Amino acid sequence: MTNQCGTSRIAGCQFTLYPMSDNFVDIILSALDEVDSSKVWKDTDDVSTCIRGKMVHIFDVTEAIFLHAAKTGEHVAMSGTFSIGCPGDSSGDVYMDETDEPQNQANIQSIEQEAGCKFALYPMGREDYMEQIMNQIDLSKSRGVKVSASHYATRLDGDVKDIFRTLHESFDQVQQEVSHVTMTFTVSANSPSNR
Amino acid sequence: MTNQCGTSRIAGCQFTLYPMSDNFVDIILSALDEVDSSKVWKDTDDVSTCIRGKMVHIFDVTEAIFLHAAKTGEHVAMSGTFSIGCPGDSSGDVYMDETDEPQNQANIQSIEQEAGCKFALYPMGREDYMEQIMNQIDLSKSRGVKVSASHYATRLDGDVKDIFRTLHESFDQVQQEVSHVTMTFTVSANSPSNR
Repeated sequence: MTNQCGTSRIAGCQFTLYPMSDNFVDIILSALDEVDSSKVWKDTDDVSTCIRGKMVHIFDVTEAIFLHAAKTGEHVAMSGTFSIGCPGDSSGDVYMDETDEPQNQANIQSIEQEAGCKFALYPMGREDYMEQIMNQIDLSKSRGVKVSASHYATRLDGDVKDIFRTLHESFDQVQQEVSHVTMTFTVSANSPSNR
Repeated sequence: MTNQCGTSRIAGCQFTLYPMSDNFVDIILSALDEVDSSKVWKDTDDVSTCIRGKMVHIFDVTEAIFLHAAKTGEHVAMSGTFSIGCPGDSSGDVYMDETDEPQNQANIQSIEQEAGCKFALYPMGREDYMEQIMNQIDLSKSRGVKVSASHYATRLDGDVKDIFRTLHESFDQVQQEVSHVTMTFTVSANSPSNR
């Protein structure tokens, strides 16, 4: 049913949504309620949420959860790690048989939201990992987001949809060259530091 | 003055503190105010804070910031990435000449705070990275915290001081074997899910 290589290998993301608000429970639950996560395996505990499935849906669902929370106007952030090709991961889920059509893009197209994001790519098991990282940082420069250097990370500023597209494309590009790739990210919107 | 190898090579952490409260600004500023970060280089923007210096101080400062925020009783979390040996990092800072005496341990000893934490070790540039990771997950089992497996991460439950000691020791152990190591972590306290 599934395979470990090629376009349909299993990806995942371990992430947490952080609304800096007394209403954090409602904001989290409302965002989750507005997002269609039927095409991913999902598990939530008190520390984080893990979703697993096809790469396209992993990025679609994380982007949609963040946007639906950020549109409340509250200061919200999301931190997490995308992963693909982890030798310890299992692909034996029916979720890999889902179609490639993302479920949430139509619903989020009208949400305009600026954000700042720091991300770092970690190609695993390769001595040439720095070269793989540098190739992607070059790519990011042409994707409609402002790119700047940061310690241990690359910073992206712009519309949330452009940020997630850049994350997705960078991750996708590296995983075509490297079997096991992880990518950390922190994206923040409506920070009072920016008002 | 400094060197890239041995016990005094420069470490760092890019992290964000997340108080799930309308008072998030006060909680963050109060925690920062109570923590002595004079032995680390520090830079904060709207997305995250980066500290760099000797490894002992990087762990001391992150632990102290989290504990001083968590003791408010609010639901607070911290996500970040520790790093050492990054080829892009520079060690030309006076902070590497600081003594090894942590500045904040005396002040936090009386704070008793339970938390949950997920962390993942990423030894870079090595084909045997999974073996390096496995060695540390074994080590964690004996450190007074409850250890459990999670997708893409290892979960630790227990007192915050025990959690940070385990993170520090795991990171230190791997960086003695591997030049460039990163370690992601998310630690969460006072979650209503646990009440």
